[in-house]
Amino acid sequence: MTTTQVTLVQIDNYGPWTVTPDPRREMDLQTMQSRLFADLAQFVGSRDGYVFFTRFDNMVAVTNGLDSAAHERLQATVRNRYPVTVSLGVDVAERPIDALETATGRVQNAGSAQDGDRREVLAGTYREESDDDDVAIAHFDVNNATGKYTDRLNEFDSFIRIEQGYAALMRYMREEHGALSFFVGGDNVIAACPDLDQADYRAAIDHVNEAADVDLKVGVGHGRSAHEAGFAAKHALEDCRYEGTTVEFAGATSATPE
Amino acid sequence: MTTTQVTLVQIDNYGPWTVTPDPRREMDLQTMQSRLFADLAQFVGSRDGYVFFTRFDNMVAVTNGLDSAAHERLQATVRNRYPVTVSLGVDVAERPIDALETATGRVQNAGSAQDGDRREVLAGTYREESDDDDVAIAHFDVNNATGKYTDRLNEFDSFIRIEQGYAALMRYMREEHGALSFFVGGDNVIAACPDLDQADYRAAIDHVNEAADVDLKVGVGHGRSAHEAGFAAKHALEDCRYEGTTVEFAGATSATPE
Amino acid sequence: MTTTQVTLVQIDNYGPWTVTPDPRREMDLQTMQSRLFADLAQFVGSRDGYVFFTRFDNMVAVTNGLDSAAHERLQATVRNRYPVTVSLGVDVAERPIDALETATGRVQNAGSAQDGDRREVLAGTYREESDDDDVAIAHFDVNNATGKYTDRLNEFDSFIRIEQGYAALMRYMREEHGALSFFVGGDNVIAACPDLDQADYRAAIDHVNEAADVDLKVGVGHGRSAHEAGFAAKHALEDCRYEGTTVEFAGATSATPE
Amino acid sequence: MTTTQVTLVQIDNYGPWTVTPDPRREMDLQTMQSRLFADLAQFVGSRDGYVFFTRFDNMVAVTNGLDSAAHERLQATVRNRYPVTVSLGVDVAERPIDALETATGRVQNAGSAQDGDRREVLAGTYREESDDDDVAIAHFDVNNATGKYTDRLNEFDSFIRIEQGYAALMRYMREEHGALSFFVGGDNVIAACPDLDQADYRAAIDHVNEAADVDLKVGVGHGRSAHEAGFAAKHALEDCRYEGTTVEFAGATSATPE
Repeated sequence: MTTTQVTLVQIDNYGPWTVTPDPRREMDLQTMQSRLFADLAQFVGSRDGYVFFTRFDNMVAVTNGLDSAAHERLQATVRNRYPVTVSLGVDVAERPIDALETATGRVQNAGSAQDGDRREVLAGTYREESDDDDVAIAHFDVNNATGKYTDRLNEFDSFIRIEQGYAALMRYMREEHGALSFFVGGDNVIAACPDLDQADYRAAIDHVNEAADVDLKVGVGHGRSAHEAGFAAKHALEDCRYEGTTVEFAGATSATPE
Repeated sequence: MTTTQVTLVQIDNYGPWTVTPDPRREMDLQTMQSRLFADLAQFVGSRDGYVFFTRFDNMVAVTNGLDSAAHERLQATVRNRYPVTVSLGVDVAERPIDALETATGRVQNAGSAQDGDRREVLAGTYREESDDDDVAIAHFDVNNATGKYTDRLNEFDSFIRIEQGYAALMRYMREEHGALSFFVGGDNVIAACPDLDQADYRAAIDHVNEAADVDLKVGVGHGRSAHEAGFAAKHALEDCRYEGTTVEFAGATSATPE
Repeated sequence: MTTTQVTLVQIDNYGPWTVTPDPRREMDLQTMQSRLFADLAQFVGSRDGYVFFTRFDNMVAVTNGLDSAAHERLQATVRNRYPVTVSLGVDVAERPIDALETATGRVQNAGSAQDGDRREVLAGTYREESDDDDVAIAHFDVNNATGKYTDRLNEFDSFIRIEQGYAALMRYMREEHGALSFFVGGDNVIAACPDLDQADYRAAIDHVNEAADVDLKVGVGHGRSAHEAGFAAKHALEDCRYEGTTVEFAGATSATPE
Repeated sequence: MTTTQVTLVQIDNYGPWTVTPDPRREMDLQTMQSRLFADLAQFVGSRDGYVFFTRFDNMVAVTNGLDSAAHERLQATVRNRYPVTVSLGVDVAERPIDALETATGRVQNAGSAQDGDRREVLAGTYREESDDDDVAIAHFDVNNATGKYTDRLNEFDSFIRIEQGYAALMRYMREEHGALSFFVGGDNVIAACPDLDQADYRAAIDHVNEAADVDLKVGVGHGRSAHEAGFAAKHALEDCRYEGTTVEFAGATSATPE
């Protein structure tokens, strides 16, 4: 049974900050948002978690392995180096959506995202132990995206197709299973899932095929952390590539973390 | 009449690189992709262009004002500091999609995105002059996203709604007008457009309302560069906010760039 | 008794890389070097260690608290995101210079800094336990640097004075005590030391006063890690500022880490 | 005759900021300082200038080619993305030290570096034209540093020797010629100079040999910008390496900028 720890990272008072005293240059905002995300990716990633850029002012992370002290440190390093601060809500549940619901609620209860007085909420429940099946990660990619899209269509038309596929997958996985799916670049989507079987993944892939005419394959891994599960999922995806299969689960022995 | 210069930025041989000799830690890839984008945002942005992260391995930029020497310099600075290189295709057209089509073609003609021998293509046509109406930028945001979504729903459900709205808008604007729309974080979408009028934008907003049940407003600006047009669009969007209107065009005098 | 774990970080084959196939733009090299250091500062610093930019192609860190797995991860994240790789040598000794001597030797034994075949050495002895007196950090700054120099002289003349003071202090502390002193910006020098008493620090300060005509004060802290000791040292330095004293040791209870 | 444009970059109110409300984690300060420098290196460097980290809270740049609008943009991008702001003073003179003296004075006149009310000074005189001999850059490095130091001694003892050599060179070049010399990593020092001849450089090298027992060689270049002069100097330094000479001036035709 999965036991997923999810953290919501929300920049405090960001909307108002971007236009006070006047609107700021868009490319400076883009730079700051991306670098903040990159720093979170390093901090969380080096502790074996995963973080997804999501909407940039709100980011979702799978943080099994990061305790309350780690979250405090993360908040501090942002405060010391950025012109903004972040609020963090954390929770643990079998289904990722449920953990995120409670995590989000912890931040919302303290105040609005645009409340000038709400700063650096840090509220959460943490996963104290860790089991091999705590986290399930599915790594999807588009079959032959390079041949079908990237090398043939203009980039925006390639992008539209990938986006439509992602939009269909993200909704289906959330509604059917309470899973959280994130586009991570290229033709890749990574999802934090509860325990699902081959048939569940096959059904999701069939749905995306019908709804958006995009063909996916998926590698699935499990582990004590997002990295452990995700790295196993990457290897399983390579198995799909070599075997020509659509759904592959990583072996019993987890792939050796890099 | 708009005369949009569009640049496609494509990382060379990225797919193979991410798994050679073995798959790389996902959070390291996320960090590198985001920082590369951030650097492009600074380089292009400080020269008054706009760049959008798009798929991260492929990024689209509106580069009126950046000549061939600037593009060469951009390529060099990436080569000197990253473990990857980028190919650049550039073209100019009235409709952004047409410029991107040709720009993409220039890179595709030189070789596949996964061709191990294709490195640092630099091929393009550049806008030699600059007129006040060269670039049209539309800045959309969701009405009361904070009240309706961010402060009420869990982050993924907020995200799904924003994504569904974006997916509907991006397709409509491309199919109807050859415009290129990009989600830039929060509840914001920025589009590079040809010349459109109030009715065109109103129709797009109505479409998104029907197709995805998401309410948008938009500020539109024009200028010699993406920054000039985009900054005017931001100010026009603030007018929407204060006036309670849905579509606002920036005044004849472009907003003073910051 | 101090038990200092010191890590040498050396970029592999850097000299040749900077000029192959041709010399690279200097500002790109400066950018890459600084960002690599910044990433090390975050990785090591968030684990309570300290790293100093030193010569940028060779950097020295006090890494009590970072085990072999952490060092491996550090190497991997650099490999995945930079066009260079790093070799790491680690050792533990009472005097920092002795730990650095052995740490450096571990890397040198594997091959020259400019040996094209030597990549990613990882060799070391690690501090298995941790005691309150493992690490001693001294934080020096120049008395009234702003009033005497920054607000009065041109920046280079201010800089020369600070540099001459640093050059005198670094030699004295190494020769007398086997301590490693690093300029960290502004008018600040941080040193990793063995156990020294008030008289030792007073003598060092007197020496710098005679040799370079620069007046220093110092805060000294001890702890299980460089951060714990260094943070206590910062607070002790603030005591100097308020009390008007020259040497202050942090209290028995270590300052609460942020 | 050289006509050097020099910019002083000074972080506003930095000392107080680093300890308010409490001292901040040292590694976070190191990260922020280094990344700010890296961003300046990209902004200035991509416009063919050079910037040197100097004391990090105060940095010196050779900015021939960057006008007042570029300086304003630089200030804005820092304001939009960092928790600090910078003041900029600019001046032009034959000797770099004289330009820096006036540039520093412009910032000092507006207020102390620790004046809580002084923010974002922007005051300067700019070089309106550009001639081939405007900027003279000398690139020094240590003969066989790898063989003599890096591969033989522990890193701190290598570092001490390089530092002592730098300290001797920086003082001599400033006092004799009004030149500004900066350690840039490894065993390299880059200096912005007035017009000097072979004998002048030979004398400087002899002085460092006597004063610090460190053997230098130097490549010298001239150009319209720091990059043009510095890139020519790098190539001239390579000539020293191949010819076994001590002082080389770049040819009449400037080396092709990358």
